[in-house]
Amino acid sequence: MTAQVIPLHAPSSAPSLAPILALTAADMNAVNAVILERMQSEIPLIPALAGHLIAGGGKRMRPMLTLAGALLCDYQGTRQHKLAAAVEFIHTATLLHDDVVDGSDLRRGKTTANIVFGNPATVLVGDFLFSRAFELMVEDGSLKVLRILSRASAVIAEGEVDQLTAQRHVETSEERYLAIIGAKTAALFAAACRIGAVVAEKGEAEERALEVYGRNLGIAFQLVDDAIDYDSPAEEMGKGRGDDFRDGKMTLPVILAYARGSEEERGFWREAIAGFAISDADLAHAVALINRHDAVQATRERARHFAARAIDAIAAFPRGAAHAAMVEAAEFAVMRRY
Amino acid sequence: MTAQVIPLHAPSSAPSLAPILALTAADMNAVNAVILERMQSEIPLIPALAGHLIAGGGKRMRPMLTLAGALLCDYQGTRQHKLAAAVEFIHTATLLHDDVVDGSDLRRGKTTANIVFGNPATVLVGDFLFSRAFELMVEDGSLKVLRILSRASAVIAEGEVDQLTAQRHVETSEERYLAIIGAKTAALFAAACRIGAVVAEKGEAEERALEVYGRNLGIAFQLVDDAIDYDSPAEEMGKGRGDDFRDGKMTLPVILAYARGSEEERGFWREAIAGFAISDADLAHAVALINRHDAVQATRERARHFAARAIDAIAAFPRGAAHAAMVEAAEFAVMRRY
Repeated sequence: MTAQVIPLHAPSSAPSLAPILALTAADMNAVNAVILERMQSEIPLIPALAGHLIAGGGKRMRPMLTLAGALLCDYQGTRQHKLAAAVEFIHTATLLHDDVVDGSDLRRGKTTANIVFGNPATVLVGDFLFSRAFELMVEDGSLKVLRILSRASAVIAEGEVDQLTAQRHVETSEERYLAIIGAKTAALFAAACRIGAVVAEKGEAEERALEVYGRNLGIAFQLVDDAIDYDSPAEEMGKGRGDDFRDGKMTLPVILAYARGSEEERGFWREAIAGFAISDADLAHAVALINRHDAVQATRERARHFAARAIDAIAAFPRGAAHAAMVEAAEFAVMRRY
Repeated sequence: MTAQVIPLHAPSSAPSLAPILALTAADMNAVNAVILERMQSEIPLIPALAGHLIAGGGKRMRPMLTLAGALLCDYQGTRQHKLAAAVEFIHTATLLHDDVVDGSDLRRGKTTANIVFGNPATVLVGDFLFSRAFELMVEDGSLKVLRILSRASAVIAEGEVDQLTAQRHVETSEERYLAIIGAKTAALFAAACRIGAVVAEKGEAEERALEVYGRNLGIAFQLVDDAIDYDSPAEEMGKGRGDDFRDGKMTLPVILAYARGSEEERGFWREAIAGFAISDADLAHAVALINRHDAVQATRERARHFAARAIDAIAAFPRGAAHAAMVEAAEFAVMRRY
């Protein structure tokens, strides 16, 4: 196993987020200042709870994409700062609600807000951040941005409900899975990217190109997220990983292992996804089946396809630091191990 | 007791919602059509869950106020229909989240959505309706309306979190209580009314007058809601009433009974609000203490004050059916028994 992993980590050749982080560093400072300022409230529990998740880090991929998109469009102004913060607030609100929905206890290696502050406060602070996001957009004043992000928010909620409906249904198809992640994850990536072109007041073609980049990148990103949940050495499984398995979520590694499996293997998956076989031993067996059918590798291959489409979507933009960084970010999305 | 109650029910003199219902009936049909159309989704669970609450009725006070406000401003168009639906969607989203937050099992005499469909779906469908509300506003295209309702939504969430923080704190003051209901309830009443003047493109003075009407009406409405929770014959308590008591919510009847109570009575309230004395017998004792100190009556008197301010706020508008109906709605808010 170790011998296979090393090439992906090879520092000289592995794609990384370093270029896009460097590209957007100055703007991201401005965005972080907006985030910190606008998560405040006279009700002390609100910044305490919001700060718990926001200070916990995360890659801030979505606001970073708004910033990178604006730079790709050679935008010189500052409108993207408030709007990137709005994008991150929408994302943070959905994370808070997701943790309540899933009953999660760990996110980004940290105890989740719902465990520390309780479900009620977590739901309500999510609502607050969501409202704040719209206040930021209103301050910017673009109806086009408001249209893009209100639509994306409705689609995200639909995707989350759809995922809930598919949960514990072993017959979920790859097509339905792609529809779910297209809504729950890729819609916000697409909107975040498109807004970069909107603030730059580029034409419809540039807006659409960035939207397609974001949508495909979002799908690749989620595919790899779902692969990673089954992509650890067996002895490490169960330590914060395997959540999807225990929750009976039909992600692509499981869908493929089930589709490619023997009748006996399918019997195991039916039990497991229904919630009747979710012990650590069951998880180890699930990982073994997924490995037997190369389902993690196949999931990453699917991700590679969407990342390639993302990269081609922005082919018409001028070459330069922004373009190179966004291409590498898409390559990173496929290769990443975290 | 019965002799005191009868005059309030006297059909010849009691204020009612009949005039405002008649005034807005035609417009409300249009609003209901928007609500039914826009709660649809390709994900079947969404209209099923949203419809459970929306079909359950309720007074639709908030959209009705948008409609009445527009009529008071002699508005002839149809913009208010989508915006009133947006107001109702925001309200419905907060009700869904409230029921999750409070762990309620009954609303409007019906099993709550969180019990029928579970907390996860209820949280997510609330998010969907909230997003839909903003989509409706974007379609209307008024940044002013978007500003008013995004601000109101943030204030509502702050009020809900503040209420959560005050829960089980027997020392909550009347001032803090008024701040909480001003945020969690009156902010949306105020916004709903103000939008009536916005679509009519009246001036700032008319907008402010309607906002003040809505804010004071909302406070009166919530005060009476909180009074009603303790305003039933003792033998009927516990059948869907007394929820605030069991949840340890410091509403004005309790705040006043505690403030006016003996040291022994305060001891009881400390135990009860902390959650250590919430049996049916304790609830009956709480009602007896509230009656001893006329705390329900005093709460209604406070409501009468805010209703009077609401009525005076719209004194400068032309007399007519809309004005008379809105005055009577404010009077009804104080007198209502349901």
